[in-house]
Amino acid sequence: MSGSIGRADCAARDATDPLARVRDRFVIPEGVIYLDGNSLGALPVQTAARVVAAVEAEWGQGLISSWTDAGWMEAPLRVGAKIARLIGAEENEVVVAESTSVCLFKLVSAALTMQPGRSVLLTEEENFHTDLYIAAAAARQCGASIRVVPRQALRDALDGDVAVQLLTHVDYRTGFMHDLAELSAAAHDVGALAVWDLSHSAGAVPLSVTPDGADMATGCGYKYLNGGPGAPAFMYVRSALHTEMRNPLPGWLGHAEPFAFERGYRPAAGMASMLSGTPPILQLAALEAGVDLWNEVSMTAARRKSIALTDLFIALVEDRCADAGFSLASPRDPTRRGSQVSLRHLQGYGIVRALVDRGVIGDFRALDICRFGFAPLYLRYVDVWDAVDRLRAVMHSGAHRDSRFAERAAVT
Amino acid sequence: MSGSIGRADCAARDATDPLARVRDRFVIPEGVIYLDGNSLGALPVQTAARVVAAVEAEWGQGLISSWTDAGWMEAPLRVGAKIARLIGAEENEVVVAESTSVCLFKLVSAALTMQPGRSVLLTEEENFHTDLYIAAAAARQCGASIRVVPRQALRDALDGDVAVQLLTHVDYRTGFMHDLAELSAAAHDVGALAVWDLSHSAGAVPLSVTPDGADMATGCGYKYLNGGPGAPAFMYVRSALHTEMRNPLPGWLGHAEPFAFERGYRPAAGMASMLSGTPPILQLAALEAGVDLWNEVSMTAARRKSIALTDLFIALVEDRCADAGFSLASPRDPTRRGSQVSLRHLQGYGIVRALVDRGVIGDFRALDICRFGFAPLYLRYVDVWDAVDRLRAVMHSGAHRDSRFAERAAVT
Repeated sequence: MSGSIGRADCAARDATDPLARVRDRFVIPEGVIYLDGNSLGALPVQTAARVVAAVEAEWGQGLISSWTDAGWMEAPLRVGAKIARLIGAEENEVVVAESTSVCLFKLVSAALTMQPGRSVLLTEEENFHTDLYIAAAAARQCGASIRVVPRQALRDALDGDVAVQLLTHVDYRTGFMHDLAELSAAAHDVGALAVWDLSHSAGAVPLSVTPDGADMATGCGYKYLNGGPGAPAFMYVRSALHTEMRNPLPGWLGHAEPFAFERGYRPAAGMASMLSGTPPILQLAALEAGVDLWNEVSMTAARRKSIALTDLFIALVEDRCADAGFSLASPRDPTRRGSQVSLRHLQGYGIVRALVDRGVIGDFRALDICRFGFAPLYLRYVDVWDAVDRLRAVMHSGAHRDSRFAERAAVT
Repeated sequence: MSGSIGRADCAARDATDPLARVRDRFVIPEGVIYLDGNSLGALPVQTAARVVAAVEAEWGQGLISSWTDAGWMEAPLRVGAKIARLIGAEENEVVVAESTSVCLFKLVSAALTMQPGRSVLLTEEENFHTDLYIAAAAARQCGASIRVVPRQALRDALDGDVAVQLLTHVDYRTGFMHDLAELSAAAHDVGALAVWDLSHSAGAVPLSVTPDGADMATGCGYKYLNGGPGAPAFMYVRSALHTEMRNPLPGWLGHAEPFAFERGYRPAAGMASMLSGTPPILQLAALEAGVDLWNEVSMTAARRKSIALTDLFIALVEDRCADAGFSLASPRDPTRRGSQVSLRHLQGYGIVRALVDRGVIGDFRALDICRFGFAPLYLRYVDVWDAVDRLRAVMHSGAHRDSRFAERAAVT
């Protein structure tokens, strides 16, 4: 009944996995197979102590002096520099600020403003929704318009009117991964700026944003960077654009001399000018703890394991759930796939809920997508085997057709 | 040498102070007299456990399910409703979002957009700097201009061109407090919207923003609300304006159905529509713990003590440091003063630094302001006496003229 890969084979791979020990650096609840690190990354063991230190020692005892003595003031740039190494940027090209939505608004507005005489923001229909909403709002406020096309029409839609091309590198729904270098070059060919959302890329796939030609980018802190719920996002801007860029939300923290309390705004040099208000110090402490885990792991090794895990999942589903009605929504070619696998199924909502009941946490995305993220830092090969085994059990038992799942409500 | 008030008198007042026990709800470092709660409020005792629960139980064990099971999704509105009670708004009129700077940008942009045919944002020169920067940027993006006038010229500058009047209720530098009701009415008289920055008011002075006619307001979470470093700010919008207001940064969380993942933006009803990205859950947990302390304290009692503390400080300084060259920068009339006292002195920087060396934490604001905040929840009358005693010792010894303080650097 089972195919050529058995659970013992998976256990053997875990035994020789060079990243196996990294799992111990995370809190994984007993009995849970967590395939949703692409939505909210798991808690690193070291994070709680770091947050408690920020609360009890830095805030409680250091009080206001911690802005200087505990490095709070530099936290957005310090954590930004650490993320820069992960995404292949220069250390001075990244800063941590607000939510991805707010960061995206700032970048898109700044990019449009740098392109006088061009009035179109180009993006694709499959982009994440907040990106579409924010891009449309920023374009409207900059007197530009938004051109939303199907993915296969992107190249033809690039013309001399395009000021900014905004794309999400890895599709949140299917895991499809764009060629960042190729599409950045295509944007440059018509004089457009290439702006990227790296929410499903940072900490998931190797990136070289500066050499690959990205002009600006933002990305999420709470997915593969394991920065915790509501972790702030990062902003990247290629250094060649630093003198020209202008923060559309110029607050005191982005001023050249925040404590001079001048009446007129003078932007700080570099990425500091993209800051606005007081940084969220507790979230930054948690994010830094998550990002610091990458000091112990190479992105190349993580990517190698991520591909092995996702390939294994696809092979096991196709072998062991062959007649269950699934179709693969993700690219089969791992070089075009992020760190997730999405399966289409008309009863997808019930399937995901039934799996949750059995300790396998994935998520459902309308209309028919069962989405499974494979964070290589804390998932084992046997987890993949067990997840598919439970999926097979659900499909055989019909548990996904339970009346509790009849109403397709939103799942988190 | 000392005047009519002695330390024993202060101790006697503490002994009968109905708020005395509230001090035990805060962590106050040994030997510190903390007169900077107007910059960063002290740590409530209950906060660390709340943050640890959010990290270890909710994130670590609950993982993604905590968005629903731990009330993360509702946190911005839930904490907003608690702040609403503190500022005299309806519970559905307040939400917690990003930094004060970002919240102010959203409100000012929304307000300007609601006033077609009017093109001026009126504010005063003494407004906080980030408010001036953000207001100017929002006005520019809305095709409006900013009119910045001296405080005494505000009334004359209100004319039919004014779309929005933006004022900070309590002046960060001097503690001067505007009459919110009177100035809101003046704005309404010419058809302008009244937008307020309550950063130095919320948790410091009684507010009735809805009955007093404020149209919109924002305020800081980390000063008198004791929400911790980088706590998110709140936004208030009068309910009558809810259907008309539009969030200029429309992200997924402000969508009518965030999990429907629709390509077009449809705003949520009410204040939820002013949200943009994923809320900072750890900061919200800390902020909620700080705000919850107000369940035990009436704002009327807090204000009574705040006035007593600031009156006492002024009397003691004028009595015991009479020849030291100080002049009062704050209003002498307590009904026109927030919860701080500012003293002007040409050697102000050295004085504040010398006091810090002696455990009295205030702050310096250029050019010559020594600023002392009096948070009534955790300060005692003897703290005021001891602070002035140390100030007197500094002035008598000349410690503030130490060469270490010669260079007037920024202080936090």
